[in-house]
Amino acid sequence: MDSVLRQSKAMCPFMRKATVATLRAMSTTTTTAVATRPSACGGTISKLQTLARRCPVMGKAMAVQSARLGHVAGYHGKAAAGAAGKAGAAKLHTGRPHSAQAVEGSLFREKVQLPPKLPVKPQVAGVSAATAIPVNHGASKFDYEGFYDAEIEKKHKDKSYRYFNNINRLAKEFPRAHMANKEDKVTVWCANDYLGMGRNPYVLKTMHETIDEYGAGAGGTRNISGHNRHAVELEATIAKLHAQEAALVFSSCYVANDATLATLGSKMPDCVILSDSLNHASMIQGIRHSGARKIIFKHNDVVDLEEKLAALPLHVPKIIAFESVYSMCGSIGPIEEICDLADKYGAITFNDEVHAVGMYGPHGAGVAEHLDFQAHASGKPRGTIMDRCDIITGTLGKAFGSVGGYIAGSAKLVDTVRSLAPGFIFTTSLPPAVMAGARAAIEYQMEYNSDRVLQQLHTRAVKEALNERDIPVIPNPSHIIPILVGSAELAKKASDKLLQDHQIYVQSINYPTVPVGQERLRITPTPGHTKDLRDQLVTALESIWNELGIKRTSEWAAEGGFIGVGEPAAVAAATPIWSDEQLGIAEATRAIMHDTSPAQGNVTERLLASDLLRSEQQTAAAIAA
Amino acid sequence: MDSVLRQSKAMCPFMRKATVATLRAMSTTTTTAVATRPSACGGTISKLQTLARRCPVMGKAMAVQSARLGHVAGYHGKAAAGAAGKAGAAKLHTGRPHSAQAVEGSLFREKVQLPPKLPVKPQVAGVSAATAIPVNHGASKFDYEGFYDAEIEKKHKDKSYRYFNNINRLAKEFPRAHMANKEDKVTVWCANDYLGMGRNPYVLKTMHETIDEYGAGAGGTRNISGHNRHAVELEATIAKLHAQEAALVFSSCYVANDATLATLGSKMPDCVILSDSLNHASMIQGIRHSGARKIIFKHNDVVDLEEKLAALPLHVPKIIAFESVYSMCGSIGPIEEICDLADKYGAITFNDEVHAVGMYGPHGAGVAEHLDFQAHASGKPRGTIMDRCDIITGTLGKAFGSVGGYIAGSAKLVDTVRSLAPGFIFTTSLPPAVMAGARAAIEYQMEYNSDRVLQQLHTRAVKEALNERDIPVIPNPSHIIPILVGSAELAKKASDKLLQDHQIYVQSINYPTVPVGQERLRITPTPGHTKDLRDQLVTALESIWNELGIKRTSEWAAEGGFIGVGEPAAVAAATPIWSDEQLGIAEATRAIMHDTSPAQGNVTERLLASDLLRSEQQTAAAIAA
Repeated sequence: MDSVLRQSKAMCPFMRKATVATLRAMSTTTTTAVATRPSACGGTISKLQTLARRCPVMGKAMAVQSARLGHVAGYHGKAAAGAAGKAGAAKLHTGRPHSAQAVEGSLFREKVQLPPKLPVKPQVAGVSAATAIPVNHGASKFDYEGFYDAEIEKKHKDKSYRYFNNINRLAKEFPRAHMANKEDKVTVWCANDYLGMGRNPYVLKTMHETIDEYGAGAGGTRNISGHNRHAVELEATIAKLHAQEAALVFSSCYVANDATLATLGSKMPDCVILSDSLNHASMIQGIRHSGARKIIFKHNDVVDLEEKLAALPLHVPKIIAFESVYSMCGSIGPIEEICDLADKYGAITFNDEVHAVGMYGPHGAGVAEHLDFQAHASGKPRGTIMDRCDIITGTLGKAFGSVGGYIAGSAKLVDTVRSLAPGFIFTTSLPPAVMAGARAAIEYQMEYNSDRVLQQLHTRAVKEALNERDIPVIPNPSHIIPILVGSAELAKKASDKLLQDHQIYVQSINYPTVPVGQERLRITPTPGHTKDLRDQLVTALESIWNELGIKRTSEWAAEGGFIGVGEPAAVAAATPIWSDEQLGIAEATRAIMHDTSPAQGNVTERLLASDLLRSEQQTAAAIAA
Repeated sequence: MDSVLRQSKAMCPFMRKATVATLRAMSTTTTTAVATRPSACGGTISKLQTLARRCPVMGKAMAVQSARLGHVAGYHGKAAAGAAGKAGAAKLHTGRPHSAQAVEGSLFREKVQLPPKLPVKPQVAGVSAATAIPVNHGASKFDYEGFYDAEIEKKHKDKSYRYFNNINRLAKEFPRAHMANKEDKVTVWCANDYLGMGRNPYVLKTMHETIDEYGAGAGGTRNISGHNRHAVELEATIAKLHAQEAALVFSSCYVANDATLATLGSKMPDCVILSDSLNHASMIQGIRHSGARKIIFKHNDVVDLEEKLAALPLHVPKIIAFESVYSMCGSIGPIEEICDLADKYGAITFNDEVHAVGMYGPHGAGVAEHLDFQAHASGKPRGTIMDRCDIITGTLGKAFGSVGGYIAGSAKLVDTVRSLAPGFIFTTSLPPAVMAGARAAIEYQMEYNSDRVLQQLHTRAVKEALNERDIPVIPNPSHIIPILVGSAELAKKASDKLLQDHQIYVQSINYPTVPVGQERLRITPTPGHTKDLRDQLVTALESIWNELGIKRTSEWAAEGGFIGVGEPAAVAAATPIWSDEQLGIAEATRAIMHDTSPAQGNVTERLLASDLLRSEQQTAAAIAA
């Protein structure tokens, strides 16, 4: 036993210095600072334990031990990963089993030189290291192809293996596409080109001209010959869109989120990142890559967030990372409340507007802009919620119809990320034509409101039609129409049937993009989805729901509801973020509601078919412009 | 003391089970298995220590302790990072202070829930945790803008702050470009569009047609409406180019490298990644993100690599990650030797051909293809070095003139990465026109050899001219012309002078892209850099070397040479990888060497000016085709 103690003393500078009396005293008294909170192991904890928790070595050991309560695992970090899974839906958006906890896992994957000629991973069944000495000295090499096989087989087994559909969206027949065979035409109902800007003539003309003048690619990184007028102009346009000082363009918003969070989180001393439990994989990766402390708060729960913020010292840098529109359920982040909390607790806000840019606000800057619709419509951004967001990230690849991502914020923030983020520095710039086309798309959408208004009306029409038919739309205030299926196999079958029997393409969304049991079809209407296409979709879904016997809204309701479906409170909370007034349909809607003559279709379909709203919409557009 | 022991027992399953007798016995005997090697701390080590080393908690503590020999640091991982810095040039390609050791650092940045209301980082000067309780409870919030300011100021101070030049490469005047002002024309001498494919008419025509038919963007991730014939065809073309079963396209090769290494390294049990010390930032990041063990081997040193491989158990999965052409110095990786070692020690090879694709081999598949020139020229790839590479990564953004990156390998490998890598799964596909244009460029370069031959001849001509003028080219066998300056300030001055006084754009390459003291100008000739442009460049460099008094080759030689400059052995080893025979200039060169009539210019310039090589080149081209 003495030798164990001697070793501890040799390794730990604290143990080396502490006297026996000190240790004894510390192990019997309890600290008052933490006494009000239960310890991870239950009961009160001693001062020594408090200290040990803060020690990188002992703290880790204690965390692993506590995580082991529910999992008996080997020495390779599975236990820690399992425990982390409880903290939130961190597993949601990634294929990695220990998802938000990879950095935890790294503890068990030392980078120090290995001890020579010993098995790296003792093949122990239980936990006793004493019995775990040389097993499998392994004269055989690792079977790489066998490993790949096993990984792919796992995906097949849990039905998460992805089969890609060959979908060629046609610029001249939007939203139609052809499959591998040019004659096989389908209607696309799940693209993220929400506004059809991918075929906007002004955008395409700009791209053609840019290719003619400047060629195919940028020819280098931004630092080495890849910086040009297209980058300068695009970043200026993005900064203007979000009323921020500066912007920075990346290969994708995946890279923008990853690089920005990783850079800030690793550079700011002792940074803590508070992350919404439904955040996108790119943010989860960025936080992981930062090595910063991560605290997950419950989805859109500002009470939980405040509790977590309040537990942190005021002076410590904190980033609150969240989305404005969560793309798989269509929920909307409480941006203003998060900004308030950020101010109160000395945090900065990282607002991912990827699924909102182009779609909300008088200029299409996103939900943050939408929340102060009038102020932005009249060109007064200062003091608005968007102005209060410290970092806004967005994409050029969805509503703007191109590819690439960006951040916008203060000039110094942007310069810092520009100067430090390897994911920005060491990568080739986007092609001139891509940047010019994206800029054209943003400028177009800053100028004209009609695409996003029409998109919202089509969304309302489809949601109303599905609700009338008892098809379970997950209620939400946004432009996303998630339809709950609740089984990976059924969701895939429904998707396959839509394609084969009805020439409608809607990809099924399965684990890990959504949790197991929440599998869904995710429908995204666009301005081009006219009444005939909407009718086809609703009829097709109706027949598939019958054929496959998929649960209806009323059935979910009878069970008490599930993730909003069949839950009256969730339906009530799902008032569309685009109000009737903002859409310019308030008066026309009232007129239709009072119209007692027999008519076909739901309110929105009748609105769309009538001339009632035209003049009203023109007025609304004039106000917005 | 008892309480400490009790706590240890509570935390460690081994300690809980081991009897006092066992512990005593283990702490006095030494293990024979490792007795032949000295322990990290010197002297022999006990069985208990051997076990402790393998324990994730104690092993880490011992590693930190051992790392601390040279560094007295606090509890936040600087010691481990400092020690790791010695292992190689890991700092080279990243702005992060602990570079290749971020995952190490993560040990000290727990992701577990923080203890409430306690300072996150005890502000201790020494190492005694006992004195480190609440200091700076900090009533003030973190100063984010002040932090950004300080980070940017650091970059200014160490001269690594980057000023981007606005360079607009003109498709019709290649390799000319205009600056911010359209009238300010310059010649670009540092782009990575090595072959001028960014303005190739066949590529541009393909892009125009694709935009007309399929629009601007892909409209979704590969899984959700972003998979199309362009992706399918491009990946088939890439697989064919590298004679591999399959390929996978990413937003960039930065993402391809990062995602692939992170995925494989994290998924393969106990994976070890052996990484060349000059590897690109994207690989360094991928390895870090994998959390796998990383072992850095000396640049291109197969003896060092073998030593490191031999120290690992045979059955453990290992990835050897390296480049075929190192872009900042132009050195070439020993691919065949690395494949041999991989076979011997049960590793797989990860060969980054980013700067080589399009440039080497009869079809432009890279250096691996070039090494079996005849076999590939005659369509017999099986058993070649390229065939033996397990993973080949490449870019569409350099010699292929577009944007994007890829991996190629076995079908199962590719399917595994496709199925698991978040950086692939959760990102929008490249635009159809980008993928179609890239495929056109690859097909063009697979068919025609003339661009890369001309590029090589122009490279030779410039290298010869600079060597004649005693301007210090870092010797290398590739198409890169790095000119040593050796000072960040001078390199920037030289670059600025080239641009302002001579209308020549060559970006200076400073830290962290290259180590401090190795700052350089990096010149990349293309087929479009005709004699008048070459003469202008050489004359301009000559005058700037005089004006700024930059060291000449002979001066470096007088000091014994530096990174190859002025080192006869390095010059001798830099025989171009494209031989005279492969270039079709062997006979013509002999003729010129024997020609005693007075003539202007170096051998290659005389070759380029003569008609001698034309028929010979046609013969060489016919052999290659």
